[in-house]
Amino acid sequence: MNLGAIEAGGTKFVCAVGNEQGEFIQRVSFPTTTPEETMGKVIDFFQNYSLSAIGIGSFGPVDLNVDSPQYGYITMTPKVQWQKFDIFGALKKHFHIPIGFDTDVNAAAFGEKVWGAGSDVNSCIYMTVGTGIGVGAVVEGKLLHGLTHPEMGHILVRRHPSDQYEGKCPYHKDCLEGLAAGPAISERWGKAGVELQGRAEVWEMEADYLAQALVNYILILSPERIILGGGVMKQLQLFPLIRKRVQELLNGYVHHAAILSSINEYIVPPGLGDNAGISGALALANKAKNTDI
Amino acid sequence: MNLGAIEAGGTKFVCAVGNEQGEFIQRVSFPTTTPEETMGKVIDFFQNYSLSAIGIGSFGPVDLNVDSPQYGYITMTPKVQWQKFDIFGALKKHFHIPIGFDTDVNAAAFGEKVWGAGSDVNSCIYMTVGTGIGVGAVVEGKLLHGLTHPEMGHILVRRHPSDQYEGKCPYHKDCLEGLAAGPAISERWGKAGVELQGRAEVWEMEADYLAQALVNYILILSPERIILGGGVMKQLQLFPLIRKRVQELLNGYVHHAAILSSINEYIVPPGLGDNAGISGALALANKAKNTDI
Repeated sequence: MNLGAIEAGGTKFVCAVGNEQGEFIQRVSFPTTTPEETMGKVIDFFQNYSLSAIGIGSFGPVDLNVDSPQYGYITMTPKVQWQKFDIFGALKKHFHIPIGFDTDVNAAAFGEKVWGAGSDVNSCIYMTVGTGIGVGAVVEGKLLHGLTHPEMGHILVRRHPSDQYEGKCPYHKDCLEGLAAGPAISERWGKAGVELQGRAEVWEMEADYLAQALVNYILILSPERIILGGGVMKQLQLFPLIRKRVQELLNGYVHHAAILSSINEYIVPPGLGDNAGISGALALANKAKNTDI
Repeated sequence: MNLGAIEAGGTKFVCAVGNEQGEFIQRVSFPTTTPEETMGKVIDFFQNYSLSAIGIGSFGPVDLNVDSPQYGYITMTPKVQWQKFDIFGALKKHFHIPIGFDTDVNAAAFGEKVWGAGSDVNSCIYMTVGTGIGVGAVVEGKLLHGLTHPEMGHILVRRHPSDQYEGKCPYHKDCLEGLAAGPAISERWGKAGVELQGRAEVWEMEADYLAQALVNYILILSPERIILGGGVMKQLQLFPLIRKRVQELLNGYVHHAAILSSINEYIVPPGLGDNAGISGALALANKAKNTDI
């Protein structure tokens, strides 16, 4: 039997049908409008298939506490119509099958763990740098949850000495996302990232911020691989700059070959390319089917 | 049958015999001299007891990779005689019983999880602020390991605007440990912490650094409880300052009652007081016994 996968984003929803090997047989996408309209289309699409489980990777924040009365809700998104929307329940009402549910970045991290650049390790993180910065983590094969889901995109970083830009995060101004997500790059330099390709100082600064974040993730979580995706990471010149800066900042303290000598295989692009999110939702469906949650 | 516990520190070794309920029947301590002399005393002590398992919480860094040929070694400590010393093997040679092995702070975190301030949650972190800063983490009941063990004491923090002190970490100068461990406090202010009790600016700055670290731990690991111990945390005036600063820095972003309204029960002193480390070693012994590792 097939599996359903939903990558629920703030701009668009991608829905797909695939199998346990991570292969897709069908895929559609809709713009994210109201919950009623968008979820109506999602339900219509999946009703054409016989599915054994569905997986959702959702924009958020979301409630992932299975003991909470709001489990499966999108909680306090700036998209007002989606605030406190029970996305898990809306599906569960129509499909009486196991439904896996997690954040979009956790789904992507899980997809990379199962079928992508993390398939040979037990723990990895997936970071997307785009209109926001999100990070999902797999620890010993399981997605990392705790008090809530991690929100690693908002960690505190040190301001680059030549950066005068105040930062764009509505909560923290100059946290990582406020200084290093796509909108911060274009506001700081007055142009979109793609138009700044030849400007070395742009990418040196961006690499410094992202490397600071990775250093803290390494020291706190000790992942076995770091996977970097999202629109900003299409600027592939960032990879060598980030790797070098991570080594400089750690300064030999984490005494492991992955960092000291094999960093090109430690900090890598997604194995699934732009499919990490939807493949991760498929992997969540597969896991839900096997654990019946 | 009894369990053995070893808190292997750079200054002294504490050895104890206890039971599965975390109760001790005997305890001794020796100064840390050479591996031969110190381990000789450890072995002599335990040979008086019939033990079903031993647990070790060790200073480090240590190798925790069970597939590594150096599993159970202290690796690159500044204490030259202990570099590449096989502490696990030295015990295993004399005691043919399960031996649990982890870092000192991971042991303390595990002790607090099993018998202390984290016994009602699934995930917690234990941070000790003393001559160094170390942090252990329990995620869904298990100690957090990855590429290596986490080294959260060395994360990057933002310099406090009125701090001119260069920082004391030999690797990173002004990382968290370099700015906020006990030796940094006394070098910056010219007096030991205990003599600075009435100086508000000392503790406001210290709380800022520790709160920055906790904010990053919260955003990255999402622990259900944060336990703060060690010599510097005997300055109990730090607790309310740290809690307030954590709330200010997060600015409502992590929308959970633990942080917004119950932070006094979220950031807490150790339930086991100064026994977190040795109790944790006992908990490691108990776990080793049950899993036969």
